Amino acid sequence: MKKYQQIAQELEAAITKGVYCPGDKLPSIRRLADDLKVAKNTVIAALYQLESKNLIEAQPKSGFTVCSVIHPNPPESPEFETISPAIVQTPELLREIITKGAAFDIKPDETPEPENRLISKLYRLINKTMRKNSARNVSYYDEPEGAVVLREQIARHYSKVGVSLNRNQIAISGGCQHALFMALMATCKPGDNVVIESPGFYGVIQLLDELGLNAIEVPCHNISGIDVNTLQRVVSEYDVRACVVTPAFSTPTGACMPDEAKQTLALLAEEYDFAVIEDDIYGDLGFHFRPKPIKHFDNHERVILCGSFSKSLSRELRVGWISGARWHNAICRLKLVTLLASNSSVQLALAEFMASGDYQRYLKQRVQQLEQNRNALLSYLQNQGPEEIQYTSPIGGLCIWVKLPAQLDTVSLYHKALEQGIVLAPGALFTSHNDFSNYLRLSFCHPLTESRAQALKILMLLTEFGASVSV
Amino acid sequence: MKKYQQIAQELEAAITKGVYCPGDKLPSIRRLADDLKVAKNTVIAALYQLESKNLIEAQPKSGFTVCSVIHPNPPESPEFETISPAIVQTPELLREIITKGAAFDIKPDETPEPENRLISKLYRLINKTMRKNSARNVSYYDEPEGAVVLREQIARHYSKVGVSLNRNQIAISGGCQHALFMALMATCKPGDNVVIESPGFYGVIQLLDELGLNAIEVPCHNISGIDVNTLQRVVSEYDVRACVVTPAFSTPTGACMPDEAKQTLALLAEEYDFAVIEDDIYGDLGFHFRPKPIKHFDNHERVILCGSFSKSLSRELRVGWISGARWHNAICRLKLVTLLASNSSVQLALAEFMASGDYQRYLKQRVQQLEQNRNALLSYLQNQGPEEIQYTSPIGGLCIWVKLPAQLDTVSLYHKALEQGIVLAPGALFTSHNDFSNYLRLSFCHPLTESRAQALKILMLLTEFGASVSV
Repeated sequence: MKKYQQIAQELEAAITKGVYCPGDKLPSIRRLADDLKVAKNTVIAALYQLESKNLIEAQPKSGFTVCSVIHPNPPESPEFETISPAIVQTPELLREIITKGAAFDIKPDETPEPENRLISKLYRLINKTMRKNSARNVSYYDEPEGAVVLREQIARHYSKVGVSLNRNQIAISGGCQHALFMALMATCKPGDNVVIESPGFYGVIQLLDELGLNAIEVPCHNISGIDVNTLQRVVSEYDVRACVVTPAFSTPTGACMPDEAKQTLALLAEEYDFAVIEDDIYGDLGFHFRPKPIKHFDNHERVILCGSFSKSLSRELRVGWISGARWHNAICRLKLVTLLASNSSVQLALAEFMASGDYQRYLKQRVQQLEQNRNALLSYLQNQGPEEIQYTSPIGGLCIWVKLPAQLDTVSLYHKALEQGIVLAPGALFTSHNDFSNYLRLSFCHPLTESRAQALKILMLLTEFGASVSV
Repeated sequence: MKKYQQIAQELEAAITKGVYCPGDKLPSIRRLADDLKVAKNTVIAALYQLESKNLIEAQPKSGFTVCSVIHPNPPESPEFETISPAIVQTPELLREIITKGAAFDIKPDETPEPENRLISKLYRLINKTMRKNSARNVSYYDEPEGAVVLREQIARHYSKVGVSLNRNQIAISGGCQHALFMALMATCKPGDNVVIESPGFYGVIQLLDELGLNAIEVPCHNISGIDVNTLQRVVSEYDVRACVVTPAFSTPTGACMPDEAKQTLALLAEEYDFAVIEDDIYGDLGFHFRPKPIKHFDNHERVILCGSFSKSLSRELRVGWISGARWHNAICRLKLVTLLASNSSVQLALAEFMASGDYQRYLKQRVQQLEQNRNALLSYLQNQGPEEIQYTSPIGGLCIWVKLPAQLDTVSLYHKALEQGIVLAPGALFTSHNDFSNYLRLSFCHPLTESRAQALKILMLLTEFGASVSV
């Protein structure tokens, strides 16, 4: 057991025993570090583990207090008796569900919430840049690696979390999916083995399917992410070419890898000669802190860092980035032949938005809103949901992972809900195995409006009346 | 020899002998068709062959007249003694030239020409659409296959040239390069043989390189495009999985495939079981007519039609399309995993621009401008260029193919010109063989300004003084 886990366990015991009571303020991080004779970072890791379990909550500028209500334990990931490479073949049914929009919104026909003032500012900036540069951009593509000013801003952005990249180590992509695709193309060939999180992002699963790659699914713990012990076992047993992880606020669990795990992963990559493909798409959506990317721990040019502005700003922008480590040149060539260029004006506007500090200002507002949305969703589930329901409580990102009673089949639930105009994301989407059949991903991307609460209510009714039965 | 070629030959003989003198108006198409007892389309094919050879020129609304000056014969494509599959390995030098922008502008730092009024209108439309829909588009991706209204407009656009597609047979891509990439991914696997034009588009050559596909280069005649007789020989001898062609105003030659050749190609694809990947990116840039796509002749779902708005509207839009024939579902899946989505607002604005008729209006203006640009460039070469220079005179598209004396090496010329801020596109880019070393592509995308004329002058000096010698 790692040190931070030990400390978390001790603090949890203290809370359970009543050493700290609901409403009590915990000692400061510095105090705990001194008392327990550990590094502050270790204390922080332990504290956010407790927060993920809803035992404590962060008070702005005044530390952590013990929660007044102890939420149910979040679902543990199932044990795999054997883990081995397997060809990915997505059933047509699931493919349909994905393409019909396994959306981040239970009620996609809902009126959109009013636009944030800073988003409006960004759009005005894009429009201004388009008008200003149109005469040129009609006839000229942007630089092959993307606008240098944007690459510079992205480099600066990452320097704040201990990732030192110069602009020539970053290429602009057509989004994070495009970046992940290029990363896999550059590092793997058909028939290769790729480790992925389980549960994990269906976009990655689909990529393995289309590229003819074998998936080795390694369990992803609901709070701390991919199980590096199991991963070590897997890479020593199989010839693994790449490992795709979302270390910060992973979908669907919302898990966040502790720093030690990230460091271990980077070391394993060097020891066992594979690429780590890091999906950092939710990295800027932490409620209280911005996790260090795995890239920070990369001393051997093995971590390919991918990200985009889709979740942190707007889906429409179609601008992402990739820092390709030892594969960077190959990835730049792939970018040219698969997409050629990105929209010049959008890139320039984004660079200006970042340089002015507006991006940071927006993130601050956005994560406050997301935390409120999450709390509303969790309150609802706690107060209105059936007792047997279990769910994670991530401290960032956009979604929670919900475990329903074992006899429920969430794919059937999906179809019944759809009849009512409700769109669910059944657990089966998040694995290439026949698994997680009683799980759901629910999003807190949007506020819990009347209409969404109603949708949840219908969902609760469908689950309680056992309207879906496991096949 | 095909009928239209025969007629072209007869008319050329008549011009050479003085039956028709410079300045004389040719008989109308209807009259020639009646006299020669052939279809009007055959006459048209013959006439544009003569126009390509600069023997006649089209007068708006009043037929064809014999040119007052007979331009030199356009360069013939070299003979290949043997044509066989070969792995593509782009030399680093050429890769650098491509990425540094084998641009469509000899003087890329030139002040852009004033924007066309209709382009400004399109950009205003994009901006209006972005503002109107931003609240929604921040959180939602567009439909997986792209905005239905745009797919409908593209379907209608093609229906005017005899291609009947419904909107579900069209998917929006991130541009034409993205479409070509998906077409090759869907139809081929590493090690497969792909027929390409020679000379042909370097974006396709690079794709074959990155995807591990073998290139079989089939000669592309400067006026009539890919040699279908040679192609037939090739596909009967080798196992070919796909054939990539740009039948309308191909780059770099500007060639235009006659209808009979397109029909033959479609039939060969069925007989020998391969895909025809049609690059229609210049299809809307014909000075006098819009060529029928090969897709029109596709009765067996073997022609994958690719295109985009990059050359006909603006490079910045990053919106293209693909109609994938029997591979369409596979291509839609590839679109999802490689790019996920395109910019919603740009798509909607384009749909409106097309629906209002503005796109057609713009094309009319654009091709008039392009023809003027072409004429200015050809005049310059004729009056100022060395005698030995030869060049094509396409009736659409954006560029001409120039043959310099055999001892000149245009890659060396590229480097010397670059020192003067002049960007050339040497012939070596347009083949995967060590060929076309004394050829250049010159663009008429932009007007021949003082600065570009100066650049051409320097180019002429460099060639005359034999500043580059064949290695």
